[in-house]
Amino acid sequence: MSPAPDVALGLDIGGSSTRALVVGSDGTRHGSGRAPGANLTSHSAESGLAAVAAALSAALRGLDPARVRAAVIGTAGPKNLAVPEIAAALDRIWLDAGLGCGYEVVADATVAFVAGTGDPDGTLVLSGTGALVARVEHRRLAQIVDGHGWLLGDQGSGFWLGREAVRRTLRALDRRVEPGPLGQAVLHRLVGTTPTGSARDVSAELVFTVHRRLPVALAELAPLVTAAAGADPVADDILDLAAGHLVEETEIVRRLGDGTVVVLAGSLLSTDTPLARRVRRGLTTRWPGAAIAVAHDAAAGAAWLGLSRSGTLDSEQATALHSRLFGRPA
Amino acid sequence: MSPAPDVALGLDIGGSSTRALVVGSDGTRHGSGRAPGANLTSHSAESGLAAVAAALSAALRGLDPARVRAAVIGTAGPKNLAVPEIAAALDRIWLDAGLGCGYEVVADATVAFVAGTGDPDGTLVLSGTGALVARVEHRRLAQIVDGHGWLLGDQGSGFWLGREAVRRTLRALDRRVEPGPLGQAVLHRLVGTTPTGSARDVSAELVFTVHRRLPVALAELAPLVTAAAGADPVADDILDLAAGHLVEETEIVRRLGDGTVVVLAGSLLSTDTPLARRVRRGLTTRWPGAAIAVAHDAAAGAAWLGLSRSGTLDSEQATALHSRLFGRPA
Repeated sequence: MSPAPDVALGLDIGGSSTRALVVGSDGTRHGSGRAPGANLTSHSAESGLAAVAAALSAALRGLDPARVRAAVIGTAGPKNLAVPEIAAALDRIWLDAGLGCGYEVVADATVAFVAGTGDPDGTLVLSGTGALVARVEHRRLAQIVDGHGWLLGDQGSGFWLGREAVRRTLRALDRRVEPGPLGQAVLHRLVGTTPTGSARDVSAELVFTVHRRLPVALAELAPLVTAAAGADPVADDILDLAAGHLVEETEIVRRLGDGTVVVLAGSLLSTDTPLARRVRRGLTTRWPGAAIAVAHDAAAGAAWLGLSRSGTLDSEQATALHSRLFGRPA
Repeated sequence: MSPAPDVALGLDIGGSSTRALVVGSDGTRHGSGRAPGANLTSHSAESGLAAVAAALSAALRGLDPARVRAAVIGTAGPKNLAVPEIAAALDRIWLDAGLGCGYEVVADATVAFVAGTGDPDGTLVLSGTGALVARVEHRRLAQIVDGHGWLLGDQGSGFWLGREAVRRTLRALDRRVEPGPLGQAVLHRLVGTTPTGSARDVSAELVFTVHRRLPVALAELAPLVTAAAGADPVADDILDLAAGHLVEETEIVRRLGDGTVVVLAGSLLSTDTPLARRVRRGLTTRWPGAAIAVAHDAAAGAAWLGLSRSGTLDSEQATALHSRLFGRPA
């Protein structure tokens, strides 16, 4: 009888959800867990750590935790997890879950790339709440463009789309022009069904409402922009600019003629959105030969990284496991 | 013997300083006070109200407060002063100071316009920490463009210049290009004298430092941009874009051929900065005949508004007082 296959844990800590997945080296999914998003900075760690614990305990339910031999955590802020209080709290969660293995913390961008391709080299184009473009070498981020956060960057991200939608609405009101379908949708969402008063009253109320929320909540307006594509030239212009930023940033990290894979990741690029279509078009024009893959299951990407780095799989086995997990040739 | 001239109080509540000035209808300056900036929103009202009280008490020192017949308060957030707790606290300060007159709250933009010209109609172009352009009719803001705050607007403001300076620095680091003089100045100020590590380490530290401060603190970097004008094409490009925004916004509120005065206001336009020179050039090209005035003393503008609206000065007297207070023909 052959020994029981190795088992690894993948944890994907994101702004909108936390996901845990336990996977065997034979591709068996032993358990999975999902919890709210976790932002593990010092002033919001408590709820974030609770989400991690909840996702972990759901994924390990009915499984002997001693079987887990490796774990990889993907997060937007790998450095946050190195802060002593947070590292200590995470160690306690690990202990409470009965996990004996250590864990490796990697950038969520690395995990996204791995979830999109079994190739070690290529380019990652990511747009979710934030945005970045990276050249990946040996499954490491060799050069990153943007990803600097909403205050200073994240061009072409969900936040950026949402903020542009509000800015264009304000611009119309400033010019005393009736906002188009996108502007109407923004006003409907943030000001109410029938804004009354002068254009300046309406814009003041819009500005006030935005400032009462967290800035990052502007990302929640991104679906209004994608929904208005084709129906409102303002939305099309915003999407053209967003795609333009992402494709220009790709040109910084990727030489023309480069034939490696491009992985699209993040909620705005991993499904068939008007932004994803524009980015694909821009990429195909510049790199006609390159394969474009899509990253779907970051937790599985993290688990696969754990198994492939644990040293028990050879390269061929890792490739076979990748295509089993992600359902397409690696 | 003629009766003692009327006396009015002007209060200018700004983000960087709070100023109070007591002025007689004959132009005599009876007293003045200065205190730190005051942001009278509910979560920071305490220190703001203390600043208002301090400026007021200094301006009234040695003066019978019963002589003050009118008061005008100019502020970036007139609506904040209508919030019940803040209005009540302000009433108490008024009472403690022995003031028997009421006060009128007006937008700081109105006061800035009045501090720049005795004319009732014209255009205001303001760039300080924030930025806006307005058409002024009968000393009221008839149409305002921008002024939406740093998160959504304030294009061409000190905040905007400072944020652009950081963004361009990050862009150079992302491209692995050595930042020019402006980028070096930004890194020197925010990261330290000799940044070490990879370009990504340096940019991560820059991003981290910016996020540790209040976003509006980015406005403190605006002087680095104006200082690098002529020496760094990146700074010149940022300043060209900022001036372009302000001049384009002026085109929204001001018809070509309009011969009324344009008042430049705010710390970036009321002195001879590279931004002010660019804005003047843009305005002169489009409105060759228009006079361009500069707003200097907002507290005096508020006091003048108080006197001219108290009903005791006729239009000629108000005009004469304006030129006495601001030292140039009204």
